Amino acid sequence: MIPLHTMNAVSAERLHGLLATLATFGPGRNGGMNRQALSEEDFQARAWLIDQAQALGCKVWTDACANLFIRREGLLDLPPVMTGSHIDTQPTGGTLDGCYGVIAGLECLHALADANIQTRRPIEVVVWTNEEGSRFSPGAMGSSAYVDPQRVAQYRGNRDAEGTTVAQALDAHAQRFAHLPRREKIATHAFVELHIEQGPVLEQAQVPLGVVSGIQGVRWYQVVCKGASAHAGTTPAHMRRDAVLMAMASLARIDALANDLAGQDKRLTFGRWSVFPNAINTIASEVTFSIDFRHADPAVLEAFDAGLGHCLAPDAEFTRLFSHAPTVFDAALIAVLEDACNATGLPWQPIRSGAFHDAMYLAEHCPTAMLFVPSRDGISHNPLEFTEPAQLEAGARALAWSLASLAQQP
Amino acid sequence: MIPLHTMNAVSAERLHGLLATLATFGPGRNGGMNRQALSEEDFQARAWLIDQAQALGCKVWTDACANLFIRREGLLDLPPVMTGSHIDTQPTGGTLDGCYGVIAGLECLHALADANIQTRRPIEVVVWTNEEGSRFSPGAMGSSAYVDPQRVAQYRGNRDAEGTTVAQALDAHAQRFAHLPRREKIATHAFVELHIEQGPVLEQAQVPLGVVSGIQGVRWYQVVCKGASAHAGTTPAHMRRDAVLMAMASLARIDALANDLAGQDKRLTFGRWSVFPNAINTIASEVTFSIDFRHADPAVLEAFDAGLGHCLAPDAEFTRLFSHAPTVFDAALIAVLEDACNATGLPWQPIRSGAFHDAMYLAEHCPTAMLFVPSRDGISHNPLEFTEPAQLEAGARALAWSLASLAQQP
Repeated sequence: MIPLHTMNAVSAERLHGLLATLATFGPGRNGGMNRQALSEEDFQARAWLIDQAQALGCKVWTDACANLFIRREGLLDLPPVMTGSHIDTQPTGGTLDGCYGVIAGLECLHALADANIQTRRPIEVVVWTNEEGSRFSPGAMGSSAYVDPQRVAQYRGNRDAEGTTVAQALDAHAQRFAHLPRREKIATHAFVELHIEQGPVLEQAQVPLGVVSGIQGVRWYQVVCKGASAHAGTTPAHMRRDAVLMAMASLARIDALANDLAGQDKRLTFGRWSVFPNAINTIASEVTFSIDFRHADPAVLEAFDAGLGHCLAPDAEFTRLFSHAPTVFDAALIAVLEDACNATGLPWQPIRSGAFHDAMYLAEHCPTAMLFVPSRDGISHNPLEFTEPAQLEAGARALAWSLASLAQQP
Repeated sequence: MIPLHTMNAVSAERLHGLLATLATFGPGRNGGMNRQALSEEDFQARAWLIDQAQALGCKVWTDACANLFIRREGLLDLPPVMTGSHIDTQPTGGTLDGCYGVIAGLECLHALADANIQTRRPIEVVVWTNEEGSRFSPGAMGSSAYVDPQRVAQYRGNRDAEGTTVAQALDAHAQRFAHLPRREKIATHAFVELHIEQGPVLEQAQVPLGVVSGIQGVRWYQVVCKGASAHAGTTPAHMRRDAVLMAMASLARIDALANDLAGQDKRLTFGRWSVFPNAINTIASEVTFSIDFRHADPAVLEAFDAGLGHCLAPDAEFTRLFSHAPTVFDAALIAVLEDACNATGLPWQPIRSGAFHDAMYLAEHCPTAMLFVPSRDGISHNPLEFTEPAQLEAGARALAWSLASLAQQP
């Protein structure tokens, strides 16, 4: 009965109130958010979260990458159940991306306290540092450094647009929160991340809850097509080496490759373009464009890698900018999340995550899975980001059931 | 014998020396030029040209658009034969574009003086203001204002990148050259412009001289394709409205239209692109691209106008940025230029101009034609702009023959 009692103790009013309070730290344009990782706004939000945690009788740790761990003790000293996400935002972000997972976790601690429940295992709500990667590269910095602490040393030299290093920002955090004890990576029973979908699938299906099967893998490439700059008026067609036309031909072949490999499952984007010299009356000498290709099947990603070179002109250059293998979440943990969704009495469906999340790295460390709630019009990274309040409540209830259930596991 | 004597009095050494001196006013990067219209560098170059003219016993006028007219009097007070071009350059221009036509004209005046020839008609070398349009919009400002003086009023409010108006720059010129008498448009017997080809046709044909039949007409359009911005990872293919893919599809249809209309004569360029928000992992919501389409046949240009809308998505926006009808040069004047080329003993061929020139506007006023010399690799608007010295000499010789012959006409 502990999962059910915890779920039923979730307060929608408190959940929305906590979300609204978090949104006061770093308001952005048009009702959105601009709370950059390890900024003053982020520090103020963290200070408020720490106050909340301490009022709930929780202990708070930080670590070498400024992650925060808010721990509600269990009856036994066993590896904890973790939940959480991030509170940094895009420069023109919304109020839910990341924040919802952290606040719903905090609400679960409130629910446990209200219901006066002692779980077998500790439960921790984690705030992962710099998931968005918009201030410092790379994204998911905190979660990746947690899982592999050697990564911190690689990150510390990276700079934001104003020249501040990660090291300086982490040192400022350590100084600001010097009263917090520090902790290393610990054995973890399970990690559950609740997040908005950031895509249109649940909304279009009119299903309020998604149990995430995994995160598709990704390839990012940059392609440079090299032509010859020449006068648009004076150069006959047969003497041209127009880099725009080269790029178009390559793009059509890459699209056909992705169709062959992924069919209706194709997620292929040519989002970033640079044309030189970019003048109306000059034939382009160089066109650079990006490729973002994602798929859940590693074999498909590898076939894309193998086929890409054949899509390009012989003297085109292509560079792999980023790559991540597909993440398959833990089957037993997924089963718990399915039970939790069933316990809410609401419809749910399996869904694959198209976006990266901190859970992608946590899955390297412990059994991990995710819950999604719908995003209106699939919009995220935008002040228009929105999820119906009843759907936010449903997600928090499913999370509460999951955490309590996992925390009772032997 | 006057044309032949004039031609034979052309000095290659002096021609190259004059070109080299002009290039000392406003040197640019990598051996190129940066002499913006009505800049201090331009003023110094003009002062030097005026000194040269006066040393030759020529009279110099200016007008409301700061054009300079260097006149060698004829035996009779008849409408003059004019030649000339411009001395403003692109910010990273070469030493020949425009300058060659002016300096070759000056060399012809030297040749006439050396050969002690008195022509029937006056001969004028003209410096047209701001042909490049790189400091002030529009290009061919001086020649267009000469032909239609009402245009000056429209131009005077235009500003350069630093906020200076055309009016301020023209006033500064008037003050600097207050000693020059002013003149209005006058009846003109013929205008001959000698210019580098700025394209690869003569070089590829290994022919040193081109007699220009006319200037092809042009259409400049801007197309805006409107999609919907969405997350590259989370948005399934069938829910996407990717503005990049819309632009690519439009481009393929526009290219097919131009192929149908122009075949091997197609000159179609998509040179300027803007993609928004231009991020690797975001589907583009808006792509803007330019179209530059040129042809010598007005009917082909009109068919392109009529067909363009059918190439675009229904909600795409397209705007005509610029349009100019094809220019057909004067047949009798072309015949004189052909005779001049034959008189040099060198091969020549007819050629169509792909670029705009001051001659495009002069053709509205008087019988007009052009001579071309080759451009190495077709390169122009670039410090690498180059024409073999012997070819520069050949062009000046053909020009000298032409001017002397025209100046003897009744």
